[in-house]
Amino acid sequence: MRHLLSIADLTKSDALSILNTAETLSRASDGPMKKLPTLRGRTIVNLFAEDSTRTRISFEAAAKRLSADVINFSAKGSSISKGESLKDTAQTLQAMGADAVIIRHSASGAAHTLAQGQWMSGSVINAGDGTHEHPSQALLDAFTIRKHCAHGNDDLTGLRIAIVGDILHSRVARSNVLLLSMLGAHVVLVAPPTLLPIGVESWPATISYDLDSVIESVDAVIMLRIQIERMTEMYLPSAGEYARFYGLNLDRLARMKTQSIVMHPGPMNRGLEISSESADSARSVIVEQVKNGVSVRMAILYLLLAGNQELEVSL
Amino acid sequence: MRHLLSIADLTKSDALSILNTAETLSRASDGPMKKLPTLRGRTIVNLFAEDSTRTRISFEAAAKRLSADVINFSAKGSSISKGESLKDTAQTLQAMGADAVIIRHSASGAAHTLAQGQWMSGSVINAGDGTHEHPSQALLDAFTIRKHCAHGNDDLTGLRIAIVGDILHSRVARSNVLLLSMLGAHVVLVAPPTLLPIGVESWPATISYDLDSVIESVDAVIMLRIQIERMTEMYLPSAGEYARFYGLNLDRLARMKTQSIVMHPGPMNRGLEISSESADSARSVIVEQVKNGVSVRMAILYLLLAGNQELEVSL
Amino acid sequence: MRHLLSIADLTKSDALSILNTAETLSRASDGPMKKLPTLRGRTIVNLFAEDSTRTRISFEAAAKRLSADVINFSAKGSSISKGESLKDTAQTLQAMGADAVIIRHSASGAAHTLAQGQWMSGSVINAGDGTHEHPSQALLDAFTIRKHCAHGNDDLTGLRIAIVGDILHSRVARSNVLLLSMLGAHVVLVAPPTLLPIGVESWPATISYDLDSVIESVDAVIMLRIQIERMTEMYLPSAGEYARFYGLNLDRLARMKTQSIVMHPGPMNRGLEISSESADSARSVIVEQVKNGVSVRMAILYLLLAGNQELEVSL
Repeated sequence: MRHLLSIADLTKSDALSILNTAETLSRASDGPMKKLPTLRGRTIVNLFAEDSTRTRISFEAAAKRLSADVINFSAKGSSISKGESLKDTAQTLQAMGADAVIIRHSASGAAHTLAQGQWMSGSVINAGDGTHEHPSQALLDAFTIRKHCAHGNDDLTGLRIAIVGDILHSRVARSNVLLLSMLGAHVVLVAPPTLLPIGVESWPATISYDLDSVIESVDAVIMLRIQIERMTEMYLPSAGEYARFYGLNLDRLARMKTQSIVMHPGPMNRGLEISSESADSARSVIVEQVKNGVSVRMAILYLLLAGNQELEVSL
Repeated sequence: MRHLLSIADLTKSDALSILNTAETLSRASDGPMKKLPTLRGRTIVNLFAEDSTRTRISFEAAAKRLSADVINFSAKGSSISKGESLKDTAQTLQAMGADAVIIRHSASGAAHTLAQGQWMSGSVINAGDGTHEHPSQALLDAFTIRKHCAHGNDDLTGLRIAIVGDILHSRVARSNVLLLSMLGAHVVLVAPPTLLPIGVESWPATISYDLDSVIESVDAVIMLRIQIERMTEMYLPSAGEYARFYGLNLDRLARMKTQSIVMHPGPMNRGLEISSESADSARSVIVEQVKNGVSVRMAILYLLLAGNQELEVSL
Repeated sequence: MRHLLSIADLTKSDALSILNTAETLSRASDGPMKKLPTLRGRTIVNLFAEDSTRTRISFEAAAKRLSADVINFSAKGSSISKGESLKDTAQTLQAMGADAVIIRHSASGAAHTLAQGQWMSGSVINAGDGTHEHPSQALLDAFTIRKHCAHGNDDLTGLRIAIVGDILHSRVARSNVLLLSMLGAHVVLVAPPTLLPIGVESWPATISYDLDSVIESVDAVIMLRIQIERMTEMYLPSAGEYARFYGLNLDRLARMKTQSIVMHPGPMNRGLEISSESADSARSVIVEQVKNGVSVRMAILYLLLAGNQELEVSL
């Protein structure tokens, strides 16, 4: 494996290998030695053509804990905004010695373009491309679900997971449907018809328009962020109505199974897709998702850049 | 001590301990070994929701000299600007492994909110919150005054210090009044009545509207930056008139005591609150304040994050 | 040598020393040990008052490979944008312990002002000042030409090099004319009359308005980026016409000498000053220029900051 472009490229064994490595690294991070020397001397470039402080910082923290040098390249005022092609940007970063480029881009397929052009000998990691995929998010979600719900199983066989909200525009939903179903879970997509993509019937998931009929049977629910712009774009009637039909409120939370968990990729709109009480409840593992994100991204960097080195961590 | 939120929280002994540690570190920084391994493996986040290159770089330089990893998080385009609550931001940074968050925010009390929410196990350092406090600036000012005017004393007993300008909007003035008076100095606030806050009578300081009657008797004068906007906001008649009545010009400089010093937190409006000749005169310690700022911030980071380690520096 | 401000300040021997050091470092970078400990503990500030991701990242990568700490200081929202003088910025950075300041500024002469003010004991490196100079770009261009065309010679004696495009506004052209001619090359400037500066007759170069009559005889051609704004500013009739008369297309490429090379400082306007086929042809060394840029900038930092240390690299 040289790149991480989409969940669709992974075998189940690839995915499990990332989760297991993350598990090891996460135990190491809890110990006294937070920093591993694994990627000393390697240069990792954060190429963020779209704002995402959260994902950028998570990758930056992961890279620094592996002792890599990190160079941040935001698109504002950069050659990209001056109209430079992705090809020229890629060749430039390669020539500067980038061992990996982590790319966030508004165009679906940008990471693939970067990797398939053969312009770089380094690794390309997709940190979100348009409405297409966000594989590291799906991996950290799977990691979190496995930890809480899998009862010691390696995969997610038999688990039932709902993804609720704007499926249409969500790369998180796309990556998660692929990964969670590959790992054996049954995924239910819950959304108003206007927020479901054409062709969703062919996805490895069940569709529902009714959160209430789904919420009682799931092991985990992933609430997606609603972009406020969707209201004015006529995808949704109003914030209040959305919250009433598709928001996770205390009433719905109370009807969830014992041991089931509440997830959100962040940043949350408290009071819209999720109530504050739900976000802060004992079921919520939203903060833990962020922590797991760093471990999963360390695992991705480790496996892509140092896969042949033995992983020595003092546990 | 886990956080540094305001001077009001410090005892005199806390403050002196910071100044003394800064003294030790400043001597070490002058030596050949500029970098100490003290905070290796620790992650420090600069969370700047308001622009302040100067303070951000000073903390970044301090953290890097202690071998910490620094992650910069500016608010533009971040989750904060997307409306994420401070609570969610705090929990996110905590989950990513931030050992300390240095926060600059336009809202008075932001640093307290971050610390008191118990959302983080790490340290919170206030790098300026609204018009409230800017404790590291006051500490570096006290450090600078002690060095030049205290004649070997540990504190500032008997010294007379004027703070001149926009007291109303100045967090630097608030923090300095508290710290300098706690350390035994007599503080005189000099400003036009429109730039003094309501209730200033209860501050541990004397008030004057007349710089000329004060300038001859002080050991140190701290000139505050005048925001140009204050003119149009009707706080001040005109730049020229302000400079004439409250600016530090050559005439006033000449009337200062021998050994007395001129200070400014920067950035200066040369020709407005301070003339170029005064800023560059032999009395001016403005550049030295910047240098001391790095030592004081190293001391703050050291005491908050590694207080139990012995401070070993090769002097 | 303490600063690198302009090619005009260098002797031929200085220039060759930079190229030779870059050569050594470039071989080291190809080896397994990408990172040298040479500048451990040193602080390098990137002071970019004008956007230039490409140059900033190149210097950042160079500094980090020498183990220096890098602090990025972009002008947006900084004290500079609040009207702080360059003098105060310089003194501030010096006081914070900057061992070198790499400055990019829209004002011609900004780097000289910074260096000649004697406000800093550290080094100043000009990373582009207005339309004046961009010495590190010229050095990496000379390095690249020497590597490909000098047949083992130390300098560029006997080589013929065309620089094509907006000479009037180009600091790259200015620095290159000085350096390439000093190293013994014959430089031809090719541009429409409106894009040549007044006084260009006195430069150590030949002038031509006709690319076709020049292209067959050169060893290297440096195509300059055309700013789209120049069209509306009436310097140029239209993009199509510019490309037809001054662009490097396949036809012109085919008429170049064997062994001759195509260069561009980037970012390119593919289809305007250079066709995609030319940019990606076997003659093109555009990507290699970027790689050489890191080596040349490592050499500059090494010679300015650690010139007295022996350069130990494991080859």
